[in-house]
Amino acid sequence: MGVTFLKKLDQAVTQNNSLLCIGLDPVIDKLPPHIKNLHKPFFKFNKALIDATQDIVCAYKPNSAFYEARGAEGIAELKETCDYIHDRYPEIPVILDAKRGDIGSTNEGYAIYAFDYLRVGAITLHPYLGGASLTPFLDRVDRGLIILCKTSNPDSDELQSLLHNGKPLYEHVARQVIRNWNKKNNCLMVIGATYPEDLANIRGMTDEMVFLIPGIGRQGGDLGKTLTAGLNTKKRGLIISASRSVIFAGAGRDFADRARREAMRLNDIINRYRT
Amino acid sequence: MGVTFLKKLDQAVTQNNSLLCIGLDPVIDKLPPHIKNLHKPFFKFNKALIDATQDIVCAYKPNSAFYEARGAEGIAELKETCDYIHDRYPEIPVILDAKRGDIGSTNEGYAIYAFDYLRVGAITLHPYLGGASLTPFLDRVDRGLIILCKTSNPDSDELQSLLHNGKPLYEHVARQVIRNWNKKNNCLMVIGATYPEDLANIRGMTDEMVFLIPGIGRQGGDLGKTLTAGLNTKKRGLIISASRSVIFAGAGRDFADRARREAMRLNDIINRYRT
Repeated sequence: MGVTFLKKLDQAVTQNNSLLCIGLDPVIDKLPPHIKNLHKPFFKFNKALIDATQDIVCAYKPNSAFYEARGAEGIAELKETCDYIHDRYPEIPVILDAKRGDIGSTNEGYAIYAFDYLRVGAITLHPYLGGASLTPFLDRVDRGLIILCKTSNPDSDELQSLLHNGKPLYEHVARQVIRNWNKKNNCLMVIGATYPEDLANIRGMTDEMVFLIPGIGRQGGDLGKTLTAGLNTKKRGLIISASRSVIFAGAGRDFADRARREAMRLNDIINRYRT
Repeated sequence: MGVTFLKKLDQAVTQNNSLLCIGLDPVIDKLPPHIKNLHKPFFKFNKALIDATQDIVCAYKPNSAFYEARGAEGIAELKETCDYIHDRYPEIPVILDAKRGDIGSTNEGYAIYAFDYLRVGAITLHPYLGGASLTPFLDRVDRGLIILCKTSNPDSDELQSLLHNGKPLYEHVARQVIRNWNKKNNCLMVIGATYPEDLANIRGMTDEMVFLIPGIGRQGGDLGKTLTAGLNTKKRGLIISASRSVIFAGAGRDFADRARREAMRLNDIINRYRT
């Protein structure tokens, strides 16, 4: 089965001295003018970003939504992007941000999409249907299953903070994942950078588990508070994801250089908290 | 903006005297041998099923997972399937079963996929991120947003039945949808046929809202109990969805006829409870 997602991630963190993950979330209207009207604009945009940043990230994270918006053509460019990373930079893991979750027999289809068609190392998943429904994902011992726990959006407390036995729902999700869904040591969780106190709360429940942290950059999450709250005792255990603030740092011919500079700036800040 | 999803659904229910929705969920290994090796097997399978059943259903419901499993090619056949229904049988609404749900800016991409690329009338959505995150969907006043409330899988109670103030989570979801998310009268909910008591509970909260009911057929939900619990005072208000038990009723050259017979059988049972 080769190296697991978590092992590969750990190696990339060491090799590139980075906890930074770049979200590859292209939008046609925001692409640099010289890319926008090319054939396969998303792939060309992504390829330039990947080539410019592959030595300073621990992972890439394309979000399926941005590709689906362009239909079959978009999906083909998503595959080409994933294949490019797998072939050219095989040491860098790819996370498919897809937030899937259906009944078991249907999840088989999504698992095939992510793990066999796109060949990504990990996928983000909704917890609402419960752990048993996620079996087709959880059974893939060499992949990473990243369960939504506390999301970064401003109103995520509407359901996620409802109290059951005095504890918020997101904490029950975390407990189920840690105690019951992670039997094969392939689970991670999503916790938004916009909620550092909740992050500290969940870090208190597990030192080992890796958390994917969206919400820095455009969403306004505080990087310092996030790292203080979320780093584990090895000064690891977080995948800090930035999308728009990095990939759209520039809008001209130098967009990839500008993205690299912004990624380095973020990674320098992150690493200050790791020493 | 044309006729809304809910209006079109209501007209199809009247025209075909049917609450039955057929789930178009093809799987290569289960296709009839004479279809399996053709070019565009999913589209050809679906087309035959649609032609054979278009006068006895109220909607079709392709599940995106089965198409994504075949990557860009599968998505192209999903689009061709949707386009075929829109063009040939424009009076029959199409529901995309996709169970999406991300932060707002990302949900824009999914809304474009469903409503502008595939041009479906409705989509299924996860509630976990809260109502505000779903704004890009909820703002589409002419479409249907079908929120997961109580799902049909055997272990759906793991999170959905956690009690908050003495009420299960799924009931809080239902209350939020009914009171706050449905401002534009375009929300529906998913409630599994496998939980008729929960269905009765939620029907008690709203006579108007339409529920999408998966879980009859292979999943074992009881049709009689479901209808008794879920029909509203107009003997409507339900979309009874069957997938595998109908589309794989036969596996030979007569598969579409066999599907039609099974669909008629189900619809006859359903209609007995409506009179």
